[in-house]
Amino acid sequence: MKRLHVLAATIFLSLNTFGQTKEDSIQFNKISTEILNNGKAYNELRDLTKNIGHRLSGSAAYEKAVQWAAQQLRDAGADKVWLQEVMIPVWERGKESLQIKTNTGKWKSLKMLSLGNSEGTGGKDISGEIIMVKSLDEYEKLPAEKVKDKIVFFNYPFSQSYIETFKGYSDAAKYRVNAASLTAKKGGKFAIIRSLSSAFDDVPHTGAMRYENDHKIPAVAIGSSVADELEILLKSQKVTAKLNSNCGMKGEKLSHSVIGEITGKKDKSVIVVGGHLDSWDVGEGAHDDGTGIVQSIEVLRTFKKLGIQNNHTIRVVCFANEENGVKGGIQYGKTAKENDEKHLFAIESDAGGFTPRGIALEMDETKRKQIQSWKPLFLPYGAYDFENKYSGTDIYPLKDMGVPAVELVPDSQRYFDIHHTEEDTFEKINRRELLLGATVMTQLIYMVDKNW
Amino acid sequence: MKRLHVLAATIFLSLNTFGQTKEDSIQFNKISTEILNNGKAYNELRDLTKNIGHRLSGSAAYEKAVQWAAQQLRDAGADKVWLQEVMIPVWERGKESLQIKTNTGKWKSLKMLSLGNSEGTGGKDISGEIIMVKSLDEYEKLPAEKVKDKIVFFNYPFSQSYIETFKGYSDAAKYRVNAASLTAKKGGKFAIIRSLSSAFDDVPHTGAMRYENDHKIPAVAIGSSVADELEILLKSQKVTAKLNSNCGMKGEKLSHSVIGEITGKKDKSVIVVGGHLDSWDVGEGAHDDGTGIVQSIEVLRTFKKLGIQNNHTIRVVCFANEENGVKGGIQYGKTAKENDEKHLFAIESDAGGFTPRGIALEMDETKRKQIQSWKPLFLPYGAYDFENKYSGTDIYPLKDMGVPAVELVPDSQRYFDIHHTEEDTFEKINRRELLLGATVMTQLIYMVDKNW
Repeated sequence: MKRLHVLAATIFLSLNTFGQTKEDSIQFNKISTEILNNGKAYNELRDLTKNIGHRLSGSAAYEKAVQWAAQQLRDAGADKVWLQEVMIPVWERGKESLQIKTNTGKWKSLKMLSLGNSEGTGGKDISGEIIMVKSLDEYEKLPAEKVKDKIVFFNYPFSQSYIETFKGYSDAAKYRVNAASLTAKKGGKFAIIRSLSSAFDDVPHTGAMRYENDHKIPAVAIGSSVADELEILLKSQKVTAKLNSNCGMKGEKLSHSVIGEITGKKDKSVIVVGGHLDSWDVGEGAHDDGTGIVQSIEVLRTFKKLGIQNNHTIRVVCFANEENGVKGGIQYGKTAKENDEKHLFAIESDAGGFTPRGIALEMDETKRKQIQSWKPLFLPYGAYDFENKYSGTDIYPLKDMGVPAVELVPDSQRYFDIHHTEEDTFEKINRRELLLGATVMTQLIYMVDKNW
Repeated sequence: MKRLHVLAATIFLSLNTFGQTKEDSIQFNKISTEILNNGKAYNELRDLTKNIGHRLSGSAAYEKAVQWAAQQLRDAGADKVWLQEVMIPVWERGKESLQIKTNTGKWKSLKMLSLGNSEGTGGKDISGEIIMVKSLDEYEKLPAEKVKDKIVFFNYPFSQSYIETFKGYSDAAKYRVNAASLTAKKGGKFAIIRSLSSAFDDVPHTGAMRYENDHKIPAVAIGSSVADELEILLKSQKVTAKLNSNCGMKGEKLSHSVIGEITGKKDKSVIVVGGHLDSWDVGEGAHDDGTGIVQSIEVLRTFKKLGIQNNHTIRVVCFANEENGVKGGIQYGKTAKENDEKHLFAIESDAGGFTPRGIALEMDETKRKQIQSWKPLFLPYGAYDFENKYSGTDIYPLKDMGVPAVELVPDSQRYFDIHHTEEDTFEKINRRELLLGATVMTQLIYMVDKNW
């Protein structure tokens, strides 16, 4: 008898769940059909990348992007669009060159990029003998006198062994962040790093570095094949490097994040969806993070287009200055706290516009399990992985305030071939992959808005 | 008490499973680490695509590819390499052009490709007025006198609504296969189809068509943006098309599939892993199906390199003539039957070298469930989908003989942007995606070889 009771209860629950699941499943299909057929994210991204291009914080292009984003949000049907003031650092690159000289006595130019936030040589030549280390361990063991007046070449390879390339990136990131300070500590003149790149080519990758103190020497990156060639040269001879660069910090400036929202029909608690509007100053900032911007706008447009009643306010935030300061994200969190705005949920897309594979969830276990229970709805759209526990860089201030925070998890295989390089262009975007990412984001927000 | 017995049994099973799973999990990691770091598939594919290029059945390039594949198999460590004779059809394209004339009276060339297996115009101009239909239904309703002496333009769009693009492809394929015969039946002069393309560009896609009888009129494809432009023109005016082409069937020829194997240590039953060595005569046949070839060779190399003892014979088959006849696959099945060779399992990779998402399984339910029970081992490698029930084109004769047959399921979003076009080049391949596909194939063969 007990068995039968259990069976009856199970059937009842199944029917109930089935009814709800069916309704949600129909809505999921409407969202996907709308976005895959009529989505504007791809064409918007073409406009952003080709007509504005890269848009580093503080640049004229970034200010153009601010106006552009505000207009897109209005066009997408936002009830309200505004700019949020934020003080951002201004870093400029300027002209730069790295040359090496071997036994032949001739100088040869290497393809290079100064790392973001690095000071330059002030337009003067700085030169010295290159010494190479393959790891931090090896560097730690070097006595200071062996480093003094030298150029330190950190030739740490990006690990190919991880399946998720973000792990390889995290593993190697300390070299980019710390190379200059480590070199300065032992009296070296400047640092060269092997790029944080999963590709085997000559393309240099920039990205943020940090100084530990006021002794600020330059740091530059070279592509992985250039690093390999340099390693071979160094095995047989002395190699001298000469750097001439003009980059450096040029103070701060008032700029803006761009915000647009559709007002909640039941209450004004906020669901944030966003990416960062700035990019590095090379390539077109397509995957990083033009895709996050146009996907977030697509979410808003789709709610309006399909006439989905949003219980809560759905707010798109195009964050300023993620790349070299996260000032936009920090300011957003601060303002939310000051205004005592209730935030229900935040989702960020900042891992490239590739085919989606899941959602990373950073929140209490009850809410986490609830979202994980929706997995069967997402499976037909290729999102199956709800196991990661992290969220995005721009929404961490919200996360730290206790807001459930998530990040779209796209396939990561191609990202670090082009990340922070000249190659991060619109041509590297696939329309369907980009739109599927926007689809999964919209579906998740639909579920959160309905159930929370 | 019963409850406790069940519990005890469950724990025992778990421990047992855990022990086995741990050993397999370690082997999976070894396979992935080896392939992602030392895999040769990417460089081999560069060699095949750049030094041989496209390789249609019957072409000199295909014969070069036969010698190339045999050498790669020897280099990978095959115990035995041989060529399997197969009679293949020879279709040649030759020079071709499609022009249209509107109200302006001027002829304008359209980017086009004759469909594979289509007869041409014999180097003469054939011209006539274009009539457009958007679907087969619409065409069926047209009376023959409206079609007579006309050019029929089948402008059926590739559906963007399916998540798996192969469904959109299957849905539209009948237009490519049947357009010529349908047009001929009602007295039309030749057929133009909108390409089976998920992209919105001017790139034409070729691919196999078929004649129902001896009245063989030409069929050609135009890109989707060209089709859109033609549709707009046809709304306002009469448009004449003129085709001049030299393509056609040039009989048959003796050629070869290429086979290499490592002999089974316990018995000689065979596990087949393969792809097709031929390609269409445009682009470089990179994703279709250079990737399947180099991934299959990578499987063999990895078994040898890691010293994995294979219980059964692991046989790589580089099939001839998949694209316009499947003669290689059919001959392989026939020979296997004649020689009474026991085949344990067959896996094909012919859906592009994109990031893997799963394995499609076509076999009895017991074996299917067994493979599905291995899913937790594959999840860390991004393969989660073991629900599809199909296998590959070249191994269907084996499947029809009762051999459990599977196909690698890579992400499908990008494939039909470039499938059968000039754009299917090595540059469209991502090294890590290609190698991850080879990894999952090797892992699955390891499991089958060990457990069956």
